[in-house]
Amino acid sequence: MTSPVRILIHGASGRMGQALLRLAAAQPETFEVVGAVSRKPAQRVIDGVPQFAASELNGAPAFDVLVDFSLPEAFDPVLALCVQRDTALVSGTTGLSEAQLAAMRSAAQKIPLLWASNFSLGVAVLAELVERAASALPGWDCDIVEAHHTQKKDAPSGTALTLGQAAESAGAAVHYASLRAGDIVGEHLVQFTGLGERIELVHRATNRDIFARGALHVAARLAGKPPGSYRVRDLLD
Amino acid sequence: MTSPVRILIHGASGRMGQALLRLAAAQPETFEVVGAVSRKPAQRVIDGVPQFAASELNGAPAFDVLVDFSLPEAFDPVLALCVQRDTALVSGTTGLSEAQLAAMRSAAQKIPLLWASNFSLGVAVLAELVERAASALPGWDCDIVEAHHTQKKDAPSGTALTLGQAAESAGAAVHYASLRAGDIVGEHLVQFTGLGERIELVHRATNRDIFARGALHVAARLAGKPPGSYRVRDLLD
Amino acid sequence: MTSPVRILIHGASGRMGQALLRLAAAQPETFEVVGAVSRKPAQRVIDGVPQFAASELNGAPAFDVLVDFSLPEAFDPVLALCVQRDTALVSGTTGLSEAQLAAMRSAAQKIPLLWASNFSLGVAVLAELVERAASALPGWDCDIVEAHHTQKKDAPSGTALTLGQAAESAGAAVHYASLRAGDIVGEHLVQFTGLGERIELVHRATNRDIFARGALHVAARLAGKPPGSYRVRDLLD
Amino acid sequence: MTSPVRILIHGASGRMGQALLRLAAAQPETFEVVGAVSRKPAQRVIDGVPQFAASELNGAPAFDVLVDFSLPEAFDPVLALCVQRDTALVSGTTGLSEAQLAAMRSAAQKIPLLWASNFSLGVAVLAELVERAASALPGWDCDIVEAHHTQKKDAPSGTALTLGQAAESAGAAVHYASLRAGDIVGEHLVQFTGLGERIELVHRATNRDIFARGALHVAARLAGKPPGSYRVRDLLD
Repeated sequence: MTSPVRILIHGASGRMGQALLRLAAAQPETFEVVGAVSRKPAQRVIDGVPQFAASELNGAPAFDVLVDFSLPEAFDPVLALCVQRDTALVSGTTGLSEAQLAAMRSAAQKIPLLWASNFSLGVAVLAELVERAASALPGWDCDIVEAHHTQKKDAPSGTALTLGQAAESAGAAVHYASLRAGDIVGEHLVQFTGLGERIELVHRATNRDIFARGALHVAARLAGKPPGSYRVRDLLD
Repeated sequence: MTSPVRILIHGASGRMGQALLRLAAAQPETFEVVGAVSRKPAQRVIDGVPQFAASELNGAPAFDVLVDFSLPEAFDPVLALCVQRDTALVSGTTGLSEAQLAAMRSAAQKIPLLWASNFSLGVAVLAELVERAASALPGWDCDIVEAHHTQKKDAPSGTALTLGQAAESAGAAVHYASLRAGDIVGEHLVQFTGLGERIELVHRATNRDIFARGALHVAARLAGKPPGSYRVRDLLD
Repeated sequence: MTSPVRILIHGASGRMGQALLRLAAAQPETFEVVGAVSRKPAQRVIDGVPQFAASELNGAPAFDVLVDFSLPEAFDPVLALCVQRDTALVSGTTGLSEAQLAAMRSAAQKIPLLWASNFSLGVAVLAELVERAASALPGWDCDIVEAHHTQKKDAPSGTALTLGQAAESAGAAVHYASLRAGDIVGEHLVQFTGLGERIELVHRATNRDIFARGALHVAARLAGKPPGSYRVRDLLD
Repeated sequence: MTSPVRILIHGASGRMGQALLRLAAAQPETFEVVGAVSRKPAQRVIDGVPQFAASELNGAPAFDVLVDFSLPEAFDPVLALCVQRDTALVSGTTGLSEAQLAAMRSAAQKIPLLWASNFSLGVAVLAELVERAASALPGWDCDIVEAHHTQKKDAPSGTALTLGQAAESAGAAVHYASLRAGDIVGEHLVQFTGLGERIELVHRATNRDIFARGALHVAARLAGKPPGSYRVRDLLD
């Protein structure tokens, strides 16, 4: 029996951080959360997990993978720590600058690193299926319809664009449509239409926990991998 | 047992006319086609049905309802004949002028008359359901997504707009999206989204015969009705 | 401006009771929760709402409608109180005995009363649409497919059977299929298939709050209605 | 520019044979139909294609691939001819005996050979996607729902079982549901359900031409391949 993957969670007080802590605690054979880093921890230990302030980051205990869902201004020391300790990094922090993205690419030559905007395993699988379908069905029309809650500002969604790029990489021309309605967590339909037949590939998210669950999935598989820049798709079973 | 409804078909050589003749012939207990009017009939009788040129329209035998799918330039004598004979008129001729629409409204005071752009019974039922759903679910978001073959130029489809008006008449604000792909005959989704739940009302057409079938359905029910302007919805079972 | 509806919640410590309290508190202009009844209240007042033990039920303050989601063994005094006070009763308590059902029918001659197994407004609307579609589309095939989480034991779901009865009351013969998968909250598809066309009527639930929201919706509308036995469908807008 | 693939069509008078002739004639740069074999040809040449009776099979002109949609009793000489001429064979003839299946496996050591029950390219793509999804999503529930016209006797459909085997080969346990309604040509939904998310993979057929189109697709690609037993999936782009 293998020992659990040691995880350091950065951004522990945010919505994703809280979900990560809750879901990792439910799988003690797979994950050991060695520390939770947030701006101002309320206590030194919460639910058995040692808490650290951002300023204490470099004193964090040994870990196999750092999982980071925080803000761009806190990102640089996170990346530096992983390189220094030679550990894996999983990050879903959005809004990184060009310089930060370049630093990430450079770090990927030394450590295994995964950055993604959507950690749902289902979406990662769908992207792979979309690419395969597009390459096998040249000449079929490709439409992507996505639906999200009314608070979502950008359209098409980043995930729709990712799926579209998967289709385009295999030669399809993609048409997008976006619906904004109610409190829909997120739905994506990729439709390939030929003559007399049609394929519809759909992903429906009903619970935001899937993003934390997917981040833990890739964290467990990224630890110990060779250096490089990984996608969620690369770490599916 | 009642005697069959006597039908005169105008525009008999067109795609709809041919489908009407074929489907009416398959229901001899319900329909008796007393004549088929086209520009230049190839023979005097085809498959047992007397053929008439447009110029012979006024000499057509007695009928209960005239079913017209032809062109605007041939419409005026058709309307005049129905008023003169005091019979019902079902028409799906598109591109009528303002004057012709006014003449139709005026004729509807004397004869039962139905004009529609879509004769599918399913679409008519859907329009009724959409109106009811919109009135029962105030505050829910309403989206209409329609898909048709790539040859279709207008978007949203006329049917999507009709469904949207049904929703709007009950207070909904409607958002439209259109897909043009492959050889899709016609699909319409009307989606009402609330918090934590959603209703999807869908119509899928796979065969153009449904339009001729619907036209015969309303023809059988319009004959003998009081004068007035009817919709397909008004003649559902 | 009208004054809020005064609600007494019975079964306040259960999942539905807690959701009712939370959602009613968010609409202070519409609802005033005058009391919460549970087996053993932890405090006399919680979040501003007076708490009562079941044994104190008869001493509850004046209310317009009692909303009951509890257990059969606690039901009789609830029904008696509403009749005695001449108030409305909304109940979703399941497992009532024949005698209790008979008592409810009898009470409905004196007070407005609504009992339901599913309080989703969307499902109530769908049932109405299904009945209408079935009556307008005689001869079309009717299939119901429902999907729920793997913990659900009964199949087809009670809601599927209710929808099926709506179709059957209009003459349709219904075929059922059930899926049990993942953590699906509840989905129902009612499909009417003709020749060359098809109507699909779908309800998707993604959040259990819809049941509490629907119960509050009908509670607000039932208060002050004439005596009788009501369905959720009867109190839609 | 390559010369067209020379095709001999066996079973030319059947529904598939007629569709093959019509669709091949529309792509003269890709296909040259060198002959059409049927029980009793009405003429020696129809639409420019030489006609042969089954008894004249061995005198057929040179071809690259034989496409056979006929009956088991006519199959043996077809297989023998392809082996003798060292050409490819595409067959969709159903009801073959165990001995015929064994002869086919043996012949596949000498010629490229493809037998399938469903020649839709979309279905072949879907089977590949299903296998990939099942392997990438261990532990997710897998349900297959198929819908066909009311004349279809077997359930689940052969295609549903093929899709199910693709999922099972990757470790999934599959649950099936079947609908028989109206004149639905054929629809298959393969659904993978996890916690909080779901993938739906759908194929919809609206026109039977897709089977002939798929048979021509594989015929063009099978000609010239090494000996072996191929699936439609193996000849996708």
